[in-house]
Amino acid sequence: MKLLVINPNISEDVTSLIRAEAERSAGPATELVVETAPYGVEYIETRLESLIAAGAVAEVIAAHAGTVDGVVVAAFGDPGMPALKELVDVPVIGITEAALCAAALQGHRFSIIAISDRITAWYRECVEGFGLAGRLASIRSIKEALGGIGTVQEDFGPTLVALAKQAVEEDGADVIILAGAPLAGLAREVSHQIPVPVVDGIGSGIRMAEAVVGLASGTHRDGAFAAPPLKRRAGLSPALDLALTLTQNPSSATPEGGK
Amino acid sequence: MKLLVINPNISEDVTSLIRAEAERSAGPATELVVETAPYGVEYIETRLESLIAAGAVAEVIAAHAGTVDGVVVAAFGDPGMPALKELVDVPVIGITEAALCAAALQGHRFSIIAISDRITAWYRECVEGFGLAGRLASIRSIKEALGGIGTVQEDFGPTLVALAKQAVEEDGADVIILAGAPLAGLAREVSHQIPVPVVDGIGSGIRMAEAVVGLASGTHRDGAFAAPPLKRRAGLSPALDLALTLTQNPSSATPEGGK
Amino acid sequence: MKLLVINPNISEDVTSLIRAEAERSAGPATELVVETAPYGVEYIETRLESLIAAGAVAEVIAAHAGTVDGVVVAAFGDPGMPALKELVDVPVIGITEAALCAAALQGHRFSIIAISDRITAWYRECVEGFGLAGRLASIRSIKEALGGIGTVQEDFGPTLVALAKQAVEEDGADVIILAGAPLAGLAREVSHQIPVPVVDGIGSGIRMAEAVVGLASGTHRDGAFAAPPLKRRAGLSPALDLALTLTQNPSSATPEGGK
Amino acid sequence: MKLLVINPNISEDVTSLIRAEAERSAGPATELVVETAPYGVEYIETRLESLIAAGAVAEVIAAHAGTVDGVVVAAFGDPGMPALKELVDVPVIGITEAALCAAALQGHRFSIIAISDRITAWYRECVEGFGLAGRLASIRSIKEALGGIGTVQEDFGPTLVALAKQAVEEDGADVIILAGAPLAGLAREVSHQIPVPVVDGIGSGIRMAEAVVGLASGTHRDGAFAAPPLKRRAGLSPALDLALTLTQNPSSATPEGGK
Amino acid sequence: MKLLVINPNISEDVTSLIRAEAERSAGPATELVVETAPYGVEYIETRLESLIAAGAVAEVIAAHAGTVDGVVVAAFGDPGMPALKELVDVPVIGITEAALCAAALQGHRFSIIAISDRITAWYRECVEGFGLAGRLASIRSIKEALGGIGTVQEDFGPTLVALAKQAVEEDGADVIILAGAPLAGLAREVSHQIPVPVVDGIGSGIRMAEAVVGLASGTHRDGAFAAPPLKRRAGLSPALDLALTLTQNPSSATPEGGK
Amino acid sequence: MKLLVINPNISEDVTSLIRAEAERSAGPATELVVETAPYGVEYIETRLESLIAAGAVAEVIAAHAGTVDGVVVAAFGDPGMPALKELVDVPVIGITEAALCAAALQGHRFSIIAISDRITAWYRECVEGFGLAGRLASIRSIKEALGGIGTVQEDFGPTLVALAKQAVEEDGADVIILAGAPLAGLAREVSHQIPVPVVDGIGSGIRMAEAVVGLASGTHRDGAFAAPPLKRRAGLSPALDLALTLTQNPSSATPEGGK
Repeated sequence: MKLLVINPNISEDVTSLIRAEAERSAGPATELVVETAPYGVEYIETRLESLIAAGAVAEVIAAHAGTVDGVVVAAFGDPGMPALKELVDVPVIGITEAALCAAALQGHRFSIIAISDRITAWYRECVEGFGLAGRLASIRSIKEALGGIGTVQEDFGPTLVALAKQAVEEDGADVIILAGAPLAGLAREVSHQIPVPVVDGIGSGIRMAEAVVGLASGTHRDGAFAAPPLKRRAGLSPALDLALTLTQNPSSATPEGGK
Repeated sequence: MKLLVINPNISEDVTSLIRAEAERSAGPATELVVETAPYGVEYIETRLESLIAAGAVAEVIAAHAGTVDGVVVAAFGDPGMPALKELVDVPVIGITEAALCAAALQGHRFSIIAISDRITAWYRECVEGFGLAGRLASIRSIKEALGGIGTVQEDFGPTLVALAKQAVEEDGADVIILAGAPLAGLAREVSHQIPVPVVDGIGSGIRMAEAVVGLASGTHRDGAFAAPPLKRRAGLSPALDLALTLTQNPSSATPEGGK
Repeated sequence: MKLLVINPNISEDVTSLIRAEAERSAGPATELVVETAPYGVEYIETRLESLIAAGAVAEVIAAHAGTVDGVVVAAFGDPGMPALKELVDVPVIGITEAALCAAALQGHRFSIIAISDRITAWYRECVEGFGLAGRLASIRSIKEALGGIGTVQEDFGPTLVALAKQAVEEDGADVIILAGAPLAGLAREVSHQIPVPVVDGIGSGIRMAEAVVGLASGTHRDGAFAAPPLKRRAGLSPALDLALTLTQNPSSATPEGGK
Repeated sequence: MKLLVINPNISEDVTSLIRAEAERSAGPATELVVETAPYGVEYIETRLESLIAAGAVAEVIAAHAGTVDGVVVAAFGDPGMPALKELVDVPVIGITEAALCAAALQGHRFSIIAISDRITAWYRECVEGFGLAGRLASIRSIKEALGGIGTVQEDFGPTLVALAKQAVEEDGADVIILAGAPLAGLAREVSHQIPVPVVDGIGSGIRMAEAVVGLASGTHRDGAFAAPPLKRRAGLSPALDLALTLTQNPSSATPEGGK
Repeated sequence: MKLLVINPNISEDVTSLIRAEAERSAGPATELVVETAPYGVEYIETRLESLIAAGAVAEVIAAHAGTVDGVVVAAFGDPGMPALKELVDVPVIGITEAALCAAALQGHRFSIIAISDRITAWYRECVEGFGLAGRLASIRSIKEALGGIGTVQEDFGPTLVALAKQAVEEDGADVIILAGAPLAGLAREVSHQIPVPVVDGIGSGIRMAEAVVGLASGTHRDGAFAAPPLKRRAGLSPALDLALTLTQNPSSATPEGGK
Repeated sequence: MKLLVINPNISEDVTSLIRAEAERSAGPATELVVETAPYGVEYIETRLESLIAAGAVAEVIAAHAGTVDGVVVAAFGDPGMPALKELVDVPVIGITEAALCAAALQGHRFSIIAISDRITAWYRECVEGFGLAGRLASIRSIKEALGGIGTVQEDFGPTLVALAKQAVEEDGADVIILAGAPLAGLAREVSHQIPVPVVDGIGSGIRMAEAVVGLASGTHRDGAFAAPPLKRRAGLSPALDLALTLTQNPSSATPEGGK
């Protein structure tokens, strides 16, 4: 299967981290296409930055519509979810929701370890939106300013492990989620230092996408994720406009709906 | 005070409905600036259409940053909320959250009457996101296809009243919310036919914005709605880029990002 | 419009604080009638004191039935709500529910700063009853004994600001509510010291009442806030008896109950 | 032990029904004192009627303060709860909370059968306030006007049984609660016609009060149900004033407040 | 009435503690049959140990089917609940659910004091399953290793009292539940040291069982606790097989399953 | 990887259905060991039957402890979860939790289609226990008696499709879960008849187990799923006793802990 993996941030060095962990995680029959957001911010910390990123991710998905079997949105906080699931007829999965499932299947309560204090409100609302806030033990975060977004693992490795241990000891976490694409791959390295299962967002995203794509559950031809009634639209990018047309009328490739 | 009222849809006839009810609702000291989304769809029914609209609304807000005292986002479902509250230092209020407050202050449980079945999932998630789902008695909707988005009131007036009555009789609604900018002004006309208070989204949006702006509660200089740490950004529109710069550094007008 | 503002406590100096802030908050077309509870306690801290106050407030509302356009119940904790909304055919709004709406429209999570530790359980249940407990970041309170109820602002100003800052820093509050009529007007003075919007209960009550009365949403002629079936009653005060009669039969002034 | 059983309604024929079932339910060592509300309405259907009744019940409890071992408030909907638990140093138990416990111990989900449609909103909020709304399968009610409040059982017996059966078949109820003092004793008679356990409010109130009084768990000398700090009060009835004084200073009988 | 009281643990010294407090709590007309689990662990701390114990308790109940009027499962955490309520036609009540009811009737929020940190996750899920997690103020626990399970009271008495006081002061508990059969009887001794009502699990279990059995609410002949359709079964113990047969066909003693 | 797949029911023909779908779903590198419960009932419909099955599943897991990389418990309702996750140091995953994750990643609200009305209460509590009840649109079920448990698909195929369509049209389901091992494989056949994604429990269980095992997140060496303190135990089967010993002391193979 062919998976599109999108870094919703503009930082290429985080894309490299994502690509590396995605390749380590993917099965032998999985082909990966890794893309970086064409516009936006260096790394998302707020609802507004997430909203901007969601628009950028929509463009990337639209540009690949019809050519991939599934999409992984590779920023914790799941920018654009669940809206982006409506855009194409293949599974679109965020790494947060994937990590939440991976954690929920391995314990009861989980904690999220985040790279900045500023980011935690957005994460919390993402977990609430997915419906699993009742199982969230805590969100703990680095309190210091970051050096560079591509070197968070090196700069704060011991801090992140210490936060994870506190979440187990003080907050009752059964599973730890190391959140954020900048931490991609860290779980493999520090798992032995943390006394509960440690879940990596990127790894979860790839494996859960493989699982869901493999299930071949069928498409949304009705209900809240199906195409809405045709209606006039204007000013969208050609790629997005075409993707909407395809979704609304799978048997046609002619854009210009609703006119 | 000066309020920016934004129609997140591209339909000018809905903008006219919004403007008319906004003018009827606004106090004598309130100046209104009414704008239509520069791009998007004729009317929003889905999460994806709402996401697209949120981007368009962000551009309109950014273009008026620093020149208005408050913003009303005039589509039920509150596209871009609460993210858009982070964009400027004045209150940004959606008509759904305003209507929910107006309803919650006049009864215990409320029902929402919607213009299409397709739209109800998005509305439900909006109410859940605001935190008042426990007081939602029901969402009832027109089941037939719409003729034109600017004539829903004329085409479906009796249907909408009947739905409202059913919500009172069968669902236990204490208050009715007539949802959606296309219904702007209808509450005034049909209130006598419905045996509980009937809340208009646009009217609520204007009056709640006046109330909140009037409170002069202060700005977000810390916490989850304050500006995040400065970071590299790229590819944003000049207006949005400037607005982000202003928010992050109120004392300066020199953009720092986007280089 | 004419608003009845009721201090549910018997302390006249708190009534003075309420009147002052109400007058500062009210629009030019708003006439205020400010009353003090005819019996009860100096200030309400518990569910039982609130229950006693609710009875006193009912008497005040009944005495003004038919002569005002709206009622503001000016004690945090909203004694008698939502029951008192059933008593007359105009909006009856508590300052807690008003402040919760004002806060919810300006951020996501809010904290309440309270004048005594003893009062916090009652406040928490009030927020739960309104349905917004999911957005309550914390309730923080003065731990020392109060000197006089009319001088809490002077006696504990810096303490209250410190509690507000802690709520932002440690509890994740996006908005601060300074709770309790004894703190009326304080928000204006300390807003610059607190890095998020600060909401005043009295100011919120006045402005939200103006907004809701202005909406003219109509009355409860059916549903859970309408008059119940006529039934025998006895022993009520003449004012309350008459108010119930008016509500149950708006076209008649002849009391039917109380025989 | 000596239990005070209070009918919060003014109808003496309902008091008779309450007394009869209370006597059938009480253990041999239990002495019953049954009282009727000194003022109020014939039967409570709304939040406002419940608020009025709560004041009347407070007077009855205050008048018996220090002379009974426990109190049962014998109207479904629990007027004045949990506030009235603060008034005296013995358990004060509502028949709704008692019935909810009795039901919750015998199944998972329960339905409430009510005597009028108008009453159901109040009941629902009572269940929500107790915290067991998650286990409420449904509330079903008589839709016709009542003849007399003392003859509901005779007038609507088969209707009530039919409602109970529907709750089992259609709503998934594991246990049925026959709600309201006017139905006192009916459970005994119709239990064989309903295929799940049927709980009587009065019976539950008496037996749960016996159980809790018997536990002798101790009193509230701290926390949210203890006496608040002493403060000025005025205009209360002598009985209520004395009861408050006793609670606040158990070792003294000299009233301090009300000056 | 005759109550079967089961210690789901294999420790006979805990059975002695249970028997002693059960005898102190039971009414004069109550006959007690106290049994110890035939297999399992010394004391239950985890979900898995609880699952094992549930199987053992099922065997004990089955062995007494038809000979008792009610059953008390005397381990906090309620192993096997609510499943075991399906096994026989008399009330089966866990001491946790009984204690939760006893606490909920005496205050609003309660805390649980537990004998080990390891046990708290299981307790929390038990409270969530019963539906009263919204009223749980906290669970506090002994952090040190236990000496012997039969001497926890002597070894940790002051620690347990201190934990209870912290729950009142810091967590807002209105009622304290001393959890776990090893603490049976302790509430009586330390109640005067703790400034809120203190609830004993065993005492609650006995008294709530007496109350519920006394109500004679009827049996589950339909709904989710009634016998399921007859079906093939195999490999069960003779006692369990016979109990299932009796439940499924109360008029017959001939086992039908297990062929 | 080697997965142990356990049918918690005793019906071999359902085991055949499970094996067939498991083999269709498993990746090329996955080895399957499929086992049937050694004792229990033909198919689980109730909490009690689930409790019995949980004991049988524990024995099967224990018998394979140390020889497999993951376990799939293949009955909808997840008997013994989450307790069984504590038993061995590899992921133990129920098909319900796996299907819930697969559904939650493909839409927002899902419905469960069940083989009997009797089974729905147990399913609902399972979804509540997992924490995703907020996203459950409905549970719909066959109302007629089953012929044989191995032929439900043939006997009720069109009924099941009709129930799924109703869930989409009337209940707002975005995804359908065909629940229960007797329906294993049906999703593949009827997916084209149902206008939203259709999730198979067995397929989900296998693919989610592959995903989670593949993540290699590490083991529970602390927290609520780790081995509890060593303690005396008695009367367990040799397999279970050995499994507990291994978990508690991974470096030792000598049973008999805590003596």
